[in-house]
Amino acid sequence: MADRLNRNAKPTLTTRSLHPENKEAPFPFIGNDSVPTSLFYKRNHFDYPSLTYLNYWLPIGGFVTTPKVFSMQDLKNLPSKTLKVVLECAGNKRSYFRPKVFGEQWEKGAINQGFWTGVPLKTLLHSVGIQKEVTEVIIEGYDKGKKTGSNTLHSFKRSLPLEKALDPDTLIAYEYNEQPIPFEHGFPLRLIVPNWYAMASVKWIKQITLHIGTFKGPFQTEDYVYYPHVDNDQDSFPVTIHNVNSSIQQPLDKQILTKGSHTITGIAWTGLGSISKVEISIDHGTTWSQTAIQRSVTDRYAWTSWTYEWVVEEKGEYTIMAKATDTNGRTQPLTPFGTEKGTDIMLLIK
Amino acid sequence: MADRLNRNAKPTLTTRSLHPENKEAPFPFIGNDSVPTSLFYKRNHFDYPSLTYLNYWLPIGGFVTTPKVFSMQDLKNLPSKTLKVVLECAGNKRSYFRPKVFGEQWEKGAINQGFWTGVPLKTLLHSVGIQKEVTEVIIEGYDKGKKTGSNTLHSFKRSLPLEKALDPDTLIAYEYNEQPIPFEHGFPLRLIVPNWYAMASVKWIKQITLHIGTFKGPFQTEDYVYYPHVDNDQDSFPVTIHNVNSSIQQPLDKQILTKGSHTITGIAWTGLGSISKVEISIDHGTTWSQTAIQRSVTDRYAWTSWTYEWVVEEKGEYTIMAKATDTNGRTQPLTPFGTEKGTDIMLLIK
Repeated sequence: MADRLNRNAKPTLTTRSLHPENKEAPFPFIGNDSVPTSLFYKRNHFDYPSLTYLNYWLPIGGFVTTPKVFSMQDLKNLPSKTLKVVLECAGNKRSYFRPKVFGEQWEKGAINQGFWTGVPLKTLLHSVGIQKEVTEVIIEGYDKGKKTGSNTLHSFKRSLPLEKALDPDTLIAYEYNEQPIPFEHGFPLRLIVPNWYAMASVKWIKQITLHIGTFKGPFQTEDYVYYPHVDNDQDSFPVTIHNVNSSIQQPLDKQILTKGSHTITGIAWTGLGSISKVEISIDHGTTWSQTAIQRSVTDRYAWTSWTYEWVVEEKGEYTIMAKATDTNGRTQPLTPFGTEKGTDIMLLIK
Repeated sequence: MADRLNRNAKPTLTTRSLHPENKEAPFPFIGNDSVPTSLFYKRNHFDYPSLTYLNYWLPIGGFVTTPKVFSMQDLKNLPSKTLKVVLECAGNKRSYFRPKVFGEQWEKGAINQGFWTGVPLKTLLHSVGIQKEVTEVIIEGYDKGKKTGSNTLHSFKRSLPLEKALDPDTLIAYEYNEQPIPFEHGFPLRLIVPNWYAMASVKWIKQITLHIGTFKGPFQTEDYVYYPHVDNDQDSFPVTIHNVNSSIQQPLDKQILTKGSHTITGIAWTGLGSISKVEISIDHGTTWSQTAIQRSVTDRYAWTSWTYEWVVEEKGEYTIMAKATDTNGRTQPLTPFGTEKGTDIMLLIK
């Protein structure tokens, strides 16, 4: 028996469902920089597409001047951009909601950050020519299947308002962390919509269609819609940009620690502006202390890491709460969709 | 791009902590027979031992007639036995307890079943000779470290009452599912104590010591003790045999299903006798229906699989509860250490 057996423990994804494959990142262990592919959460609406072609072409049509198909080489010959982007599933933290919400029971790990490289969608739209009545751009993925309660086959497709499609940072990406995009995350091409929840960042792009009017696909009219009222659809509005949010990474929830000094670490993110402060409370929200935040000036779509040095002298049970505020003045609500403050952690000091 | 990219999703362990490595099985996906090593939950008190020796010897000493060391070949030359055994962490389902309990927040997946092959400990004890005052047998593992709140180095060791050590089914195992025991699960030798919670099944056995008196190691006097009273230690007693228990495997908690027929599946287990029935309630415990159970007559330490065909005609929210009863008349309590019925599942029927 040799030393090689004394291997280091590696964090792994948590299985939420297999068909389709939905797996959560082990949030306390993903670090605070770019996340390796092995710890990139997996979120699928359907089983993986069966992609059997050997050459990939991206068609762009609809209300365009000149429909075109782009080869991978065509795309790689165009000027590219690399952005550090947070992708977060719109259902992240759903398991903490009270009252409970049906669907995948994500804890804190349906979130990812990494470097995406690709061509601005804007470049391609200008290349095909946008007819002047166009209001939206529909991006369709190769993934398809039946939705629960329906016998119709749907492919996953969503529209972006033209203005967002023309944002110079909306990318048709072909690399993640300087490698071809992993198959499970959209190889060969994935739309990347910074600041929006990740359902907008369509994987395995099949085609792009310029559209006049309001596209009514089920992934933006049935799913990914906020319903403020329980009993009717009034005032409903689509899920788009990230809310201001933060999560504690270390220590672990329900961890047992000893008296003394402990570093509390976490991340915060927002889809509007940037994080201006992150605060910690150890007295159930009565008083708040500011954490030290490491905001990136250059990476405007990245999350903000924060740390807090906590000195604890008394044994007992403690609850640690965190809340973030962004430069638009939005503050993270402490009661996500209910009464339980879901992302607090409890500690026992011995 | 070839078909090989259309790979199947594989279930993976869920990371609870890395130092020591504690990972939970993806319970809904482990099947109902013997669990492959890749889905065997990992439970450690300390980091993995650094085992650098090339030849393994098992010393047995203390109050014996003739102390001996056994080589692996010695052990393999002795008559062996293969048993299908449930191993369950004493903290399994801790995350569901209300009030909350500190420690690793296991859900339903700190449980495993598989085939263990080895020599009855009894054979070895008779080989070394048991002095007549002996009351306990101490099994020590190679894993060691400091416990939280202590600066003393402890190796993981526990005692068995002599009677349990002499049970013909208490094994010094060297194979799991017909392969050498995986390193993380105790290679080369692991004690297997059927019917007891898995903290008794010491991994990486370093030595065995026959003992007179009551061994007071912290893993049986501080940890792994039930304290019936919150404020004092009165009436405390050690954790030993499995309580009667059951868990629902499918459907998943908070799953969204359609009207019609659904099969509810799960397992049940006990440390006393065998499972006599498993019942299901869909009306919050008012009425109960018997499930179909597949109890093994030959594998007395295996879990019992059960299924229930559920026909649902009405849309709405449902709560599914399961409870098991064993042949000793013990029935699974519905309120584990508190008021929340932790292992129920909730379903939304659309």
